Amino acid sequence: MDSFLSPSLQHWLDLTGIFVFALSGALLAVRRNFDVFGMAVLAAVTGLGGGLFRDLVIGAVPPAAFTDLGYALTPLVATVIVFFLHPEVERITKAVLVFDAAGLGLFCVTGTLKAHEYGLSLTSSAVLGLATAAGGGVLRDVLANEVPSLLRWDREVYAVPAVVGAAATALLIHGDRVNPVTMTGTAVLAFVLRLLALRYGWRAPRAWNRRSARPDES
Amino acid sequence: MDSFLSPSLQHWLDLTGIFVFALSGALLAVRRNFDVFGMAVLAAVTGLGGGLFRDLVIGAVPPAAFTDLGYALTPLVATVIVFFLHPEVERITKAVLVFDAAGLGLFCVTGTLKAHEYGLSLTSSAVLGLATAAGGGVLRDVLANEVPSLLRWDREVYAVPAVVGAAATALLIHGDRVNPVTMTGTAVLAFVLRLLALRYGWRAPRAWNRRSARPDES
Amino acid sequence: MDSFLSPSLQHWLDLTGIFVFALSGALLAVRRNFDVFGMAVLAAVTGLGGGLFRDLVIGAVPPAAFTDLGYALTPLVATVIVFFLHPEVERITKAVLVFDAAGLGLFCVTGTLKAHEYGLSLTSSAVLGLATAAGGGVLRDVLANEVPSLLRWDREVYAVPAVVGAAATALLIHGDRVNPVTMTGTAVLAFVLRLLALRYGWRAPRAWNRRSARPDES
Repeated sequence: MDSFLSPSLQHWLDLTGIFVFALSGALLAVRRNFDVFGMAVLAAVTGLGGGLFRDLVIGAVPPAAFTDLGYALTPLVATVIVFFLHPEVERITKAVLVFDAAGLGLFCVTGTLKAHEYGLSLTSSAVLGLATAAGGGVLRDVLANEVPSLLRWDREVYAVPAVVGAAATALLIHGDRVNPVTMTGTAVLAFVLRLLALRYGWRAPRAWNRRSARPDES
Repeated sequence: MDSFLSPSLQHWLDLTGIFVFALSGALLAVRRNFDVFGMAVLAAVTGLGGGLFRDLVIGAVPPAAFTDLGYALTPLVATVIVFFLHPEVERITKAVLVFDAAGLGLFCVTGTLKAHEYGLSLTSSAVLGLATAAGGGVLRDVLANEVPSLLRWDREVYAVPAVVGAAATALLIHGDRVNPVTMTGTAVLAFVLRLLALRYGWRAPRAWNRRSARPDES
Repeated sequence: MDSFLSPSLQHWLDLTGIFVFALSGALLAVRRNFDVFGMAVLAAVTGLGGGLFRDLVIGAVPPAAFTDLGYALTPLVATVIVFFLHPEVERITKAVLVFDAAGLGLFCVTGTLKAHEYGLSLTSSAVLGLATAAGGGVLRDVLANEVPSLLRWDREVYAVPAVVGAAATALLIHGDRVNPVTMTGTAVLAFVLRLLALRYGWRAPRAWNRRSARPDES
C-alpha cells in the first residue's frame, strides 16, 4: 500500500470507505447505548474488519490497518464526530444504513482491486472484494449481538449491489479500464443500487415453496 | 493443494466435506427464514470457514477457498439444491445434524492431513484438524445468533467424534498408514460416532458437583 | 518464540496470561451451564484467541498456540481445575472478572512486546497489544452469545487499563527500559487499574447529549 504521505486514489477511496463504515459502527453503538469505548471499538471493527480479513487472506501482513497510521486514526475521528454530533436516536437507524451503503460501494471496488494486485484471479478477486465489503458490517452486527442484515429476509437486499460492484470492477480490470473515473463510477453505482433497494424495499426470495410459514427462531 | 483438474483423494474428501457442511448451513438459513443470499452466505461460511482458518494458521495463503474455483462453487451448488429441494421445515433440523456430522468426519481427517503436510507436529496437526472440523459449524451458529451446539450441555457430544477422528488420523500418519481406505474409514468412524451420539443422546458431564441447579442465562 | 524448555520471562508472562484468561472462559462456561467440552473450548478460545489474532496479523505463522505444546495444554489444565474446584455459581461472576483482569494486564504487555519484535512501529505495537488483550474476552463473549463487556455502558471501563498498559509498554520500549521489573510492574498496573474500576464502578461516558433515554435493543 501507498504511505499516508503520497496517497493514490485507491488509498483515498479506502480511507473514505473506512470512515463511512466507522460512522455506521459508532452510530449503531449509540443506538445500543454503548459507552464511548464501545463506540470506538465498533467503529474500528466495522471500518477495518473487512480490509483486515482481505489482507490476511492475500498474505499482506502486517495489514495496512496496523502499519498505516491513517487507517488506525480514521475510526477514532469518526467516533469523536458521532460522539458530539450524532442525530436524534430515532434517526440513527437511517444514518447507519446510508453510511453502510457508501462503505459497501467503496470497499467492493478497493477490495477487488487490492486482491488482484496480490495475484488472485479475477473471479477470486471479485469474491474477496465481496467479502471485504460485507465483512466489516457482519462483524459489527455479530459484536452487537444482532443477526447480520446480510442474512435476513426481512431486510432489503445487501448482496446484489456488492456483487454488481465487485463484478464490474473485475470486468474493468479485465478490459484494462481501471482509472479514477471508472472506479469512482463503480463505487457510486453500487451505493445507488443499495439506496434504491432500501428506498423501494427490494427483497430477495426465500427458499422455494417454503412449506411452513412459521419462522423458527429456536 | 492440487488443482481442480487433477484431484487427489484428499481434494475430493475436502470438497465433499465442504458440500455437506454447506448443505447444513443452507438448511439452517431456511429454518431461520433467511433469504437466498443469507442461504449462500451461511453455506459458504459453514463449508469454507474451518478450512480458511486452518489455511491462515499454517500460512497457506491465499487459502484454497480463494484460489480453487471448485471450493468457491461448491457452496453455491449446495445453496441451489437446498433452495429447490429442502425438506419440510419440521425435518430440517434433523437434516442439518446429519450433514453436519458428515462434514465433521471428513474435515477432522483432511484438516489433520493438511496441517501435517505444512510441517506441524502430529499433536498440533490433530488440534488443528479438530479446529477445522468444528470451526465452520461454530461460525455458522454465531452468524445465525445461536449458542454453538459445540458448547451446549443439552446437545449431544460433538467434540468426542472429532477428537477420535483427528487423533486416529495423527496415529495413521505416525504409523505411515495413510491411504484411501484408512482415511475414508477414519472419516466414516467419526461420522458414525456422531450419529450414535445423536441417536442415543450421549451427553458430556457438566462441572463437578455444580452447586446451583439454576442455569444463569444473564 | 522460545521453546517450552528454555522459557524467557515473556514466555512465562504469556503462559500466565493464557492460564488466567482460560480460567475466566471455563468459569463462564460453568455459569452458562455448558458441558466439559464447552468449558475446554471456551477456555482455549479465551486464552489463545487474542494471541492467535496477534500472530496472524504480524505474520508469525504457524502461531505459537499451534507450535508450542505448553500453549495448547494450559487451557486444558485450567479446564480440569475449574471442573473440580469451581466456586459456588453465585461467586463465579466475580472470579471471571478478576482472572479476566489479570489476563488483560499480562497480554497488553506481551502483545505490545511481540508486535514490536516483529517490526511494527511503537504506535501499531500498542494498538495490537490492546487487541491482544481484549480479543480473547471478546471472542469468549461472542461464543457465549453475550454482548462483549468491552462495549457495554453498564459495565466498568475495560479499555482504559488496557490502553494505559499498552502505551506504558510502548514508552518503556522507546526509552529502552524493558526488563523483568518494568514489564511485571506494567502488567500489575493495568491489572490494579481494572480492579479499581470494578471496585469503584468507574464508567465511561455515552455519546454527548444522548437525546433519547430509552435503550434500543431491537
